Amino acid sequence: MSLILWQAASKGSPLHRVEAPLPEPGPEEALLEVLHCGLCHSDISMLDNAWGASGYPLVPGHEVVGRVVAVGDGVNPALIGQLRGLGWISGSCRHCRWCLGGEANLCADLEATVVGRRGGFASHVLGHQDWLVPIPAGLNPADAGPLFCGGITVFAPLVDEAVSPTARVGVIGIGGLGHLALQFAKAWGCEVTAISTHGASKSEEARSLGAHGLLDLHELAAHPGRFDLVINTSNQNLDWNAVIGSLAPRGRLHQVGAVTDPIPVNAFDFIMTRRQLTGSPTSSPASLLKMVDFCARHGIRPMVEHLPMAEVNTAIERLRRGDVRYRFVLDGPA
Amino acid sequence: MSLILWQAASKGSPLHRVEAPLPEPGPEEALLEVLHCGLCHSDISMLDNAWGASGYPLVPGHEVVGRVVAVGDGVNPALIGQLRGLGWISGSCRHCRWCLGGEANLCADLEATVVGRRGGFASHVLGHQDWLVPIPAGLNPADAGPLFCGGITVFAPLVDEAVSPTARVGVIGIGGLGHLALQFAKAWGCEVTAISTHGASKSEEARSLGAHGLLDLHELAAHPGRFDLVINTSNQNLDWNAVIGSLAPRGRLHQVGAVTDPIPVNAFDFIMTRRQLTGSPTSSPASLLKMVDFCARHGIRPMVEHLPMAEVNTAIERLRRGDVRYRFVLDGPA
Repeated sequence: MSLILWQAASKGSPLHRVEAPLPEPGPEEALLEVLHCGLCHSDISMLDNAWGASGYPLVPGHEVVGRVVAVGDGVNPALIGQLRGLGWISGSCRHCRWCLGGEANLCADLEATVVGRRGGFASHVLGHQDWLVPIPAGLNPADAGPLFCGGITVFAPLVDEAVSPTARVGVIGIGGLGHLALQFAKAWGCEVTAISTHGASKSEEARSLGAHGLLDLHELAAHPGRFDLVINTSNQNLDWNAVIGSLAPRGRLHQVGAVTDPIPVNAFDFIMTRRQLTGSPTSSPASLLKMVDFCARHGIRPMVEHLPMAEVNTAIERLRRGDVRYRFVLDGPA
Repeated sequence: MSLILWQAASKGSPLHRVEAPLPEPGPEEALLEVLHCGLCHSDISMLDNAWGASGYPLVPGHEVVGRVVAVGDGVNPALIGQLRGLGWISGSCRHCRWCLGGEANLCADLEATVVGRRGGFASHVLGHQDWLVPIPAGLNPADAGPLFCGGITVFAPLVDEAVSPTARVGVIGIGGLGHLALQFAKAWGCEVTAISTHGASKSEEARSLGAHGLLDLHELAAHPGRFDLVINTSNQNLDWNAVIGSLAPRGRLHQVGAVTDPIPVNAFDFIMTRRQLTGSPTSSPASLLKMVDFCARHGIRPMVEHLPMAEVNTAIERLRRGDVRYRFVLDGPA
């Protein structure tokens, strides 16, 4: 059996199907047969070398659901046959302050699934056993992939900061991240407001996803002091005075959208009412475990459009145009 | 007996000594005979109407130590004769979400000691009993005044955020606030670095105040990921990339200096390693109580220069020039 890869030969080029020898899992690693893999905006950033971290040929894909088909030394062979999820991180040093402290996602020697190694748009992908998340009963494996990057990105601001279910939460941007943030915040017990960046087109859907209220971004300035937490999934330049002004005392703006221009922060807006600015990318193995259980308990699931993996270039082109509601999942076999 | 006030007739004008009828404490209030009152930079901002909140004639002074000489309805008469401290806040609504929750400092209806009422550069000053802080044995009343504004401003980022004594703490600016922040962080058990904005002149003194290490601000860029907490007492525009870059994963920049230009925040710097930006002005009655006990236990005290209250204009002029190490205290009688 050989390894099938969908790889880009150079920056921005389409993915081509190639074959390679099947890799052996190293110590503590397992090999997944890829069943499904979500397409995340970060894959496009990697394809375009937007962060200067890309190496070519590049195999993107880091929202994997697969079946364990081989394990390395130190891994219980009982893992073979199990369904597991794999996200942005595929390994960490296991010995630093952060790994030992349960926040391995902050390890300085992280291994990322699509950085310097081959990702999930493939027949098989490797991952360290600590980063292979069990898929609980009650979670549909076909749709679960986007939880392991997009999902954990917006679950982290709730679980890692111990947000109170009494909080009033605003979610800016109702897309790949936002449509999951709404479901999480609703199930968390919070009062949830969907804040659309593109007018009212998604309003009714936002309600079906859990939003108690709907706002357009331009209405935010009329709601000063409204939110205990705003999760901003947008990577656009916003009216930051309105966004920060919408925070209550002790309120927190949590940034997950990768805005490239600096956010101008007025010190007084943070000093006087003790507002906070935080951000995060993904999270720890423990928070991933909590997330999948929470999703199974509350019926939280990514809304996805499926395509066969052979149509991955179509999915990439459509995502570049924003033409997906809300996430593509590419289905194997590769 | 009459009330002596040191008041400014108009914006920026010197203080003049005037007499007025002694006020009666209202319900829940007590009247302090002022023994000592620190001079804070906020008094100058109020004199100059820098925040648009000033009314004239203006009586500044909000770092008071005094003796209770009269109490209003609802106050235990046993309070009479006790020494009490009074800071920036002199009253709050007592009934809102924040007051009921122990964070009365976030009340939207705060009464500030020098806003719309007469402050502590006077023979007497009024305050609500909840905001009159006992002076424990072991705290020198003559030097304690600056704790009630400057002190609590830099104690808040430790006590209100439950900073771990294992944290590595940087303090930017070794002045009225910074010289107390160093003492607090040292006694808190932290590793403390004094970060000077004006070269090495105060270095040895910073060590005597508790700093384990010393840095000049321009050296900060050479220490990426160094600090779990940076308390910035400076109100100047800094090399923000260096300041934020000096934060470890999960590290927090806590702003207490009232920088007027926006701080340009790069979202990636907060997303990737989960840094945080917070700020605060003063704190709650409970945190004030904890602070004075902590000071008494650890021998923490403001370093002050005393002048008689009749020389308050000299103190103001010298503070405007930065000619004080580190705080003026004006001594009564007025």
